[in-house]
Amino acid sequence: MVLSQGVNFTEEQEALILKSWAVMKKDAADLGLKLFLKIFEISPSSTQQFSFLRNATEPLNKNSKLKTHSKAVFVMTCEAAAQLRKTGKITIRETTLQKLGSVHFNSGVIDAQFEVTRFALLDTIKEAVPQMWSEEMKNAWGVAYDQLVLAIKEEMKPSS
Amino acid sequence: MVLSQGVNFTEEQEALILKSWAVMKKDAADLGLKLFLKIFEISPSSTQQFSFLRNATEPLNKNSKLKTHSKAVFVMTCEAAAQLRKTGKITIRETTLQKLGSVHFNSGVIDAQFEVTRFALLDTIKEAVPQMWSEEMKNAWGVAYDQLVLAIKEEMKPSS
Repeated sequence: MVLSQGVNFTEEQEALILKSWAVMKKDAADLGLKLFLKIFEISPSSTQQFSFLRNATEPLNKNSKLKTHSKAVFVMTCEAAAQLRKTGKITIRETTLQKLGSVHFNSGVIDAQFEVTRFALLDTIKEAVPQMWSEEMKNAWGVAYDQLVLAIKEEMKPSS
Repeated sequence: MVLSQGVNFTEEQEALILKSWAVMKKDAADLGLKLFLKIFEISPSSTQQFSFLRNATEPLNKNSKLKTHSKAVFVMTCEAAAQLRKTGKITIRETTLQKLGSVHFNSGVIDAQFEVTRFALLDTIKEAVPQMWSEEMKNAWGVAYDQLVLAIKEEMKPSS
């Protein structure tokens, strides 16, 4: 299957995504939080782009709003990756994708931050499924993530 | 000793820097390269800010200009950290610091990239001296790095 940007996404890549997501799904809350804590470890200032973290006083790993948010992001990312080959594109409801686009636009998210998130996501998955991790699995998740970012970027404009 | 930003830098912190730098010094070339490969793994697009990488065709880890550059940066960073308490400030020749400022200004280096570099530096040192690594050592290197970035930022303006 050829995705946007002319990238191939093979049955083998889909199988790697499905296999790892099947294991991670039950721990989505923990893994999502791990992902965001990793992003903030690499780039502490990016907490300031989250309205619910700007004036937060409790530690990040105890922040209930961050927990809810990070689980939702992680599940959405993995579900979109899991459905990528079947649907041939990122399947998020159109209104959600538009909202994601405008939220990222309004927060001023830049390419460097999408890259940090990519690195943190792959690292989180690597630590979640160390026994099945491979260069091929890393590539499969990388391709899926890039497609999601492309889809969000297409909607990155002021909300109308 | 109180540094700019009112940050304390204690004798203990200086000792942690000196102890780890003494071990790393002989491997400065390898460690410098590791540092930059880590930065580029987290943020691949930042290679584009290095004139000598823009049209390079060989793999990054074979690039002789990158090797020279990364060793110089690593040594400069560690030497500045090692002298921080004795001199009370970042000691880099003033002309070098001005050049560093204008190079970073002209390449459009942003805060998120200084953060990625901080994370990559601490991770490189952690892997270089795993047996002596501690939260205190991490903090000492973190403070020294932040002082270096402050000194560079003060010089970040168009070259006159």
